[in-house]
Amino acid sequence: MGLDTPNKKPHDRLAELLSEDMGGVNALIRERMASKHAPRIPEVTAHLVEAGGKRLRPLLTLASARLCGYQGPFHVHLAATVEFIHTATLLHDDVVDESSQRRGRPTANLLWDNKSSVLVGDYLFARSFQLMVEPGNLRVLNILSNAAATIAEGEVLQLTAAQDLKTTEEIYLQVVRGKTAALFSAATEVGGVIAGVPEEQVQALFTYGDALGIAFQIADDLLDYQGDSSATGKNVGDDFRERKLTLPLIKAVARASDEERAFWVRTIEKGDQRDGDLEHALELLNAHAALEDTRTDALAWAEKAKDAMTELPQSELRDLLIDLADFVVARLY
Amino acid sequence: MGLDTPNKKPHDRLAELLSEDMGGVNALIRERMASKHAPRIPEVTAHLVEAGGKRLRPLLTLASARLCGYQGPFHVHLAATVEFIHTATLLHDDVVDESSQRRGRPTANLLWDNKSSVLVGDYLFARSFQLMVEPGNLRVLNILSNAAATIAEGEVLQLTAAQDLKTTEEIYLQVVRGKTAALFSAATEVGGVIAGVPEEQVQALFTYGDALGIAFQIADDLLDYQGDSSATGKNVGDDFRERKLTLPLIKAVARASDEERAFWVRTIEKGDQRDGDLEHALELLNAHAALEDTRTDALAWAEKAKDAMTELPQSELRDLLIDLADFVVARLY
Repeated sequence: MGLDTPNKKPHDRLAELLSEDMGGVNALIRERMASKHAPRIPEVTAHLVEAGGKRLRPLLTLASARLCGYQGPFHVHLAATVEFIHTATLLHDDVVDESSQRRGRPTANLLWDNKSSVLVGDYLFARSFQLMVEPGNLRVLNILSNAAATIAEGEVLQLTAAQDLKTTEEIYLQVVRGKTAALFSAATEVGGVIAGVPEEQVQALFTYGDALGIAFQIADDLLDYQGDSSATGKNVGDDFRERKLTLPLIKAVARASDEERAFWVRTIEKGDQRDGDLEHALELLNAHAALEDTRTDALAWAEKAKDAMTELPQSELRDLLIDLADFVVARLY
Repeated sequence: MGLDTPNKKPHDRLAELLSEDMGGVNALIRERMASKHAPRIPEVTAHLVEAGGKRLRPLLTLASARLCGYQGPFHVHLAATVEFIHTATLLHDDVVDESSQRRGRPTANLLWDNKSSVLVGDYLFARSFQLMVEPGNLRVLNILSNAAATIAEGEVLQLTAAQDLKTTEEIYLQVVRGKTAALFSAATEVGGVIAGVPEEQVQALFTYGDALGIAFQIADDLLDYQGDSSATGKNVGDDFRERKLTLPLIKAVARASDEERAFWVRTIEKGDQRDGDLEHALELLNAHAALEDTRTDALAWAEKAKDAMTELPQSELRDLLIDLADFVVARLY
């Protein structure tokens, strides 16, 4: 795809439009991930930060602040803050999940050790709090510290809710807010807050980030059952094999006959999986329209995100955020 | 020892004098360690918070605020903040050190798992940031977020500096600030800041906490080589066996002959320890006056803490803080 084709992905177009601001964010990240005393910190951080992530969260903060007309310097600090929080959670997630690969490269816990991942993650959390204090805005601090608590609570909830067939769609949503949506919504909301726009617009930015994050995570969980592994980098059914109760499964379990329920108890709760179980799970997911209904939910959240944007003044950045909501669910069929 | 004897320990007398405030701190801790969605969080937290720690850090904040004449409600929030930060670091430390016991009870990582300890620790960090935002004081936020970064940096430094014979007294001090003194000094400094006392007094409270924390940690490291295990709950030489380069060893290594150096390389760097090695290590520590000089350092830091207190108006609380500095090093001989 050429650099100027209209088919370019929305986040790539956002990155181009915000490239100067993003340069500032990258410079600040490099500056703040340094440690005078402990060289292990920048080593571990660089491995993750420079692994070529999409930088979606800082782009959301920069875009929100700019589309609200913000002219000050602090959107850069807040964008770096959300990237540091995200990086810290990735380091801890990989320890908790005992992961060995992320973005096609070995994880930090594998290259160094779990200790380094835990402690460098703590350092990045602390650094993110230092950064978020700098704009001197108490409302921003409230939003970001609340997001941090929601993230951590969601992670613990996921730990205890996974493999539990009693998990409801409500609990799933809470986990998804912790995993993804809380940081997305904080990223967009703080952009509006530092710009000082009216309350309805701040609220609209929150709603956009929240709904975008939920759509994004539901899409991810759906693609696990129908994705093309060359595009997603995951194999179909990874979540089933790892006994993760994501939305498609929750819907299928809720609609299960007694016999089907016994199948889910054996494969998910007890983890006794045999040849042909994934195929049978996919049959049940299709028979109960669980994949179809999950896609409908994802589309509805994307629609909610787009609707929220109508509160904000028309601009190229606003339209790109609307395109981003479409893009997140465009891979679903 | 009777309840009213003048020989009662200074932190017990502080706890009595501040018992009403401390009741508020304990109530706030219980309230904020709750989680609507994830019951695992209060379970793990309660295991640690209710294990009967000395609550020294919150007492330091309450005492500092009160001796500065603070009458508002927020010293309670800040005291709960420092206790949450402390609890979060204990949870992560036990994962990093693979500990199975703390305060005579099994650790959370043993009772639950490493995952729960990592994620509940993250939750408590996030909760501590929510709490510290509530007083609405940006200087307090600066102090506490800087302390959090120093703590995490010190932990990573300890990870890489341990077992490295090149570790200097300067690096040791940096590790000690991270392990202990940064939270002590933040705890005392924020008490003065919310009370709004003059800058010299705020600085004196910082110096007191910093020096007290350093004296406390040096004393701990010295007692590892000369303590009575019934009093310290540790066996003599635990740090040697775990190849930790604390101040006594750093001094002995700096003064070592070539032959002695080879002994330290073998036992600490390479971890090849044999029968009689601890005894030989103790001989070298004594031959080079390493224990004696470590004690002198601890006494000097305690003296520095006491000197700082002369900046503050005379009061029972101030005198108890002075007694506390004496007490921390009184167990050394």
